[in-house]
Amino acid sequence: MKVDQEHNQQEHESCRTIEIVQSKSNLSTLSIDNLDSNGDEYYTPPLNFSMIDNGIFRSGFPDTVNFSFIKTLGLRSIVYLCPEPYPVHNVEFLKANRIHLFQFGIEGTKEPFVNIPEMTIREALKVVLDVNNHPLLIHCKRGKHRTGCVVGCLRKIQRWCLTSIFDEYQRFAAAKARISDQRFMELFDASGFKDAPTSPCSCSKR
Amino acid sequence: MKVDQEHNQQEHESCRTIEIVQSKSNLSTLSIDNLDSNGDEYYTPPLNFSMIDNGIFRSGFPDTVNFSFIKTLGLRSIVYLCPEPYPVHNVEFLKANRIHLFQFGIEGTKEPFVNIPEMTIREALKVVLDVNNHPLLIHCKRGKHRTGCVVGCLRKIQRWCLTSIFDEYQRFAAAKARISDQRFMELFDASGFKDAPTSPCSCSKR
Repeated sequence: MKVDQEHNQQEHESCRTIEIVQSKSNLSTLSIDNLDSNGDEYYTPPLNFSMIDNGIFRSGFPDTVNFSFIKTLGLRSIVYLCPEPYPVHNVEFLKANRIHLFQFGIEGTKEPFVNIPEMTIREALKVVLDVNNHPLLIHCKRGKHRTGCVVGCLRKIQRWCLTSIFDEYQRFAAAKARISDQRFMELFDASGFKDAPTSPCSCSKR
Repeated sequence: MKVDQEHNQQEHESCRTIEIVQSKSNLSTLSIDNLDSNGDEYYTPPLNFSMIDNGIFRSGFPDTVNFSFIKTLGLRSIVYLCPEPYPVHNVEFLKANRIHLFQFGIEGTKEPFVNIPEMTIREALKVVLDVNNHPLLIHCKRGKHRTGCVVGCLRKIQRWCLTSIFDEYQRFAAAKARISDQRFMELFDASGFKDAPTSPCSCSKR
């Protein structure tokens, strides 16, 4: 594992980029528990997994049981929104599958002491919007708050109305939905992304 | 509007297929309410809208306010799961955008009198799995039960484990989740789709 100091350093200053070196080892043994009584493999997507748009997915923290499913997505990148180091098993999985990790360390908080770092969200969005990083998975711990805020801001860039943005946020956050997250999304100024050369999203571009 | 009696008649006997003739009229006036104070257009996805997989979307019933958003999806087909006739505004929208309507009339029910017609679900799935119909939107009335069952069966074909299938179903059905729907998905035999030449889904194929 080598910290890549050259890759987009100017653009993603708050982002720790890790270049994954190809490894000959494969982790197929990790999916041995994913076989049914006929010996067929079945898939377990991570908690709160969903497709957001062409080439963009969201979820909670992927565990080893999810790796065989994640392989099917053919990911090129992961946008990880927590400050904690990536677990060894996950780093090995990324190495074996040549998946690039972009880490944006946003602290987990509890209301009313919520402080969402807007600049970090903006840097994360630049990575998410860059089609060179697709297919891409955005995840935090539970796929509710940090991931929900990034996706909500992405929807603002895509010009979704607030009602629909909140409806989607609440579908994942459910009983844990936070007014502070929704206020952040409401106040987020998406105009800076209006002319982004790498603007998404696919949905509105086909 | 002309009932197309040739298109896949053998394969989709329980399906009423309507060929949409191109119209010169456009429905841009319908989206006139979707402008903000700067005159910029914003989008209102239908209730319970989500992307399921490459080229496959789900939602509740699309209303005129959702049309400008739906146009951005570049749909080729809609799979409509209710027996009620499609509203005139919606038919006009399909005509103007050359979207093919596949209607599978599944009655809305309430527990404990739920009767999910398995053969109709299977016919709908054949249409959903046919990439020639993509991009495609599956919808019923609220995007919870009928749509939830079709998507759940699709996930079985994709070899998702039941826990993940139910988790996704419940995210949309929320307080209205039905044991009868979940039992239907659990008992659904997906083996007949194993060798489907048009098998999806994209997620597991990239």
